[in-house]
Amino acid sequence: MKKQSKSKALSEKEGIPQPAHSSPDVAKQLISRRRRSATTEELVQGILAGDQTRLSRAITLIESKAAKHQDQARQVIEACLAHTNRSVRIGITGVPGVGKSSFIEQLGLQLVGQGHKLAVLAVDPSSSLSKGSILGDKTRMEELVKQPQAFIRPSASGTSLGGVAQKTRETILLCEAAGYDVILIETVGVGQSETAVHSMTDFFLLMKLAGAGDELQGIKRGIMEMADAIVINKADSENVKAAKLAKTEFNRALHLYPQKASGWTPKAFTCSSLKNQGIEEVWDVICNYIELVRDNGYFEQKRKEQNRYWLMQTIQDSLQQRFFDHPGIKEALDEQMSLMEQNKTTPFAAANYLLQLATIS
Amino acid sequence: MKKQSKSKALSEKEGIPQPAHSSPDVAKQLISRRRRSATTEELVQGILAGDQTRLSRAITLIESKAAKHQDQARQVIEACLAHTNRSVRIGITGVPGVGKSSFIEQLGLQLVGQGHKLAVLAVDPSSSLSKGSILGDKTRMEELVKQPQAFIRPSASGTSLGGVAQKTRETILLCEAAGYDVILIETVGVGQSETAVHSMTDFFLLMKLAGAGDELQGIKRGIMEMADAIVINKADSENVKAAKLAKTEFNRALHLYPQKASGWTPKAFTCSSLKNQGIEEVWDVICNYIELVRDNGYFEQKRKEQNRYWLMQTIQDSLQQRFFDHPGIKEALDEQMSLMEQNKTTPFAAANYLLQLATIS
Repeated sequence: MKKQSKSKALSEKEGIPQPAHSSPDVAKQLISRRRRSATTEELVQGILAGDQTRLSRAITLIESKAAKHQDQARQVIEACLAHTNRSVRIGITGVPGVGKSSFIEQLGLQLVGQGHKLAVLAVDPSSSLSKGSILGDKTRMEELVKQPQAFIRPSASGTSLGGVAQKTRETILLCEAAGYDVILIETVGVGQSETAVHSMTDFFLLMKLAGAGDELQGIKRGIMEMADAIVINKADSENVKAAKLAKTEFNRALHLYPQKASGWTPKAFTCSSLKNQGIEEVWDVICNYIELVRDNGYFEQKRKEQNRYWLMQTIQDSLQQRFFDHPGIKEALDEQMSLMEQNKTTPFAAANYLLQLATIS
Repeated sequence: MKKQSKSKALSEKEGIPQPAHSSPDVAKQLISRRRRSATTEELVQGILAGDQTRLSRAITLIESKAAKHQDQARQVIEACLAHTNRSVRIGITGVPGVGKSSFIEQLGLQLVGQGHKLAVLAVDPSSSLSKGSILGDKTRMEELVKQPQAFIRPSASGTSLGGVAQKTRETILLCEAAGYDVILIETVGVGQSETAVHSMTDFFLLMKLAGAGDELQGIKRGIMEMADAIVINKADSENVKAAKLAKTEFNRALHLYPQKASGWTPKAFTCSSLKNQGIEEVWDVICNYIELVRDNGYFEQKRKEQNRYWLMQTIQDSLQQRFFDHPGIKEALDEQMSLMEQNKTTPFAAANYLLQLATIS
């Protein structure tokens, strides 16, 4: 089921109407043939040549849980590394309904029109539950999907944000090796997914809607501070006035935050994806930002810091997983938690007790 | 040197002028005699009887790095546990110069006047460098220090916030067992110290100064969102107008944040520690808050969550420390970092390489 929808999406992207499979057996055969042919060498060559089918196949390896797929994925990434790091990575966040898909469709069409190669990825750790709420419904980007210069890939599924984020980061590398020079990474505010996307992108765009004067209610913890720009979408027809007001209020709120390490001053903008207005300006803002941070060295510095962050984060996550998966820890943890609730032990005594049950060697 | 200043402080607290030591030998003898006498049983009895000397001695054990002191500290804490959890724990933060000491002095004098027993602690991981910048200079609370119902203890020294915070949390427990029903924990915005103090208190007070109209500039990441109240200090003489303006602006800014899980709506206030104005109101606000959260169950729930947080945090910190202290990891980490900077490995490949060097058993 999943595989079918994947091959459908690829056909659409190449702009070729897909022939109806004569039978499920034929479909199976085709899939199996494609699988057999995908050696590491072929995948790498295909990716470097910009072949979307090979790129998709390699991303599927990254997303696979099978050890041999993981091994092959690692080899592919390693071979591609020298060709990475050449894109602008842009994070886009906003609540469902804010119009991220239409915005990305309009921005994407402009970018491919200008000769850019655009990859659209997503980080949505909940998508395994909702069956891919983000980018799942590609009809929402039906024009962009037809562009050969655009590559759209739904979020990796998985329940752990760490896992999903790692896969997305590795996917970015392959997309860069395949020549995509603009990478958009979309997310909704699920748990810490915005922090994860912020930590893998060069520019972070927060999308908002104008409301009934309470635009600033419900600002989520830390999200505004991460934004390099805020764009108020759906600034069209009767919304124009409210959007302008929201823009003023967001600019005021942005003013509350300290100067960014990038030297950049975030601002709010309005746009209408529906009427295709203001999208070009947002791209100009992104270009101005990239110019600034490439000049002052922050671009390079931030990417280095992000690498270090992901290295440390991966070690931390793995250490904890190993610890809590260790035999006997789960029961002991429950027991210590219960003692703690009864005020018979402290968090530190409980932690020390648990730590001596699993030692490192 | 350190011990001398400690015993001086204790004498001051008891309001007895300290006799000059006839010789350093006598001082040494006295200290040694006091040490010998402090059995675990005596310490526990002393703490439960509210003896400040015993309490201080037990806190010194908590702060000691020696294994036998740590063991004894653990026993003392364990024996005291049944008598803990009966205080209101209040976190106070603000930049140096905002007037935390004078505020705490005024608030503290009011509280002991009302029959409360007050402990004042601090979390300042930098204090080992600055030789105890917070609460170090007790002359700043010279009236409060004389009150037998007040117990003032400088921040534990240490370079790691985790270590300092753990010691402070354990100190809170002993202070509660000694009958202190209001615990004030002071911090300055050093690194994550505010988050640590927020995670060990029931109420979090942010102290601010009125400036030249730019009060809201430089709001530090996440600090405003943690505040249950903001108090603008030094609202006296020519500052009154600016303080009122700041209050309005802070109330507007507080309005930006989402509803708190406690059901409480944070507000801004003005006060003058110098003229002893507005301090009573701050205490009323704290009392109203405590009443609300005791009624709606949030008080109990938050303390349970804090315990779980500290348990998990301690495990996480220890796992990392063990890992990075493991033989060979440091060199391998430097090597992988260097490969990563040269774009020859990814953060995930580097992490996996390091993780297989140290396994759990």
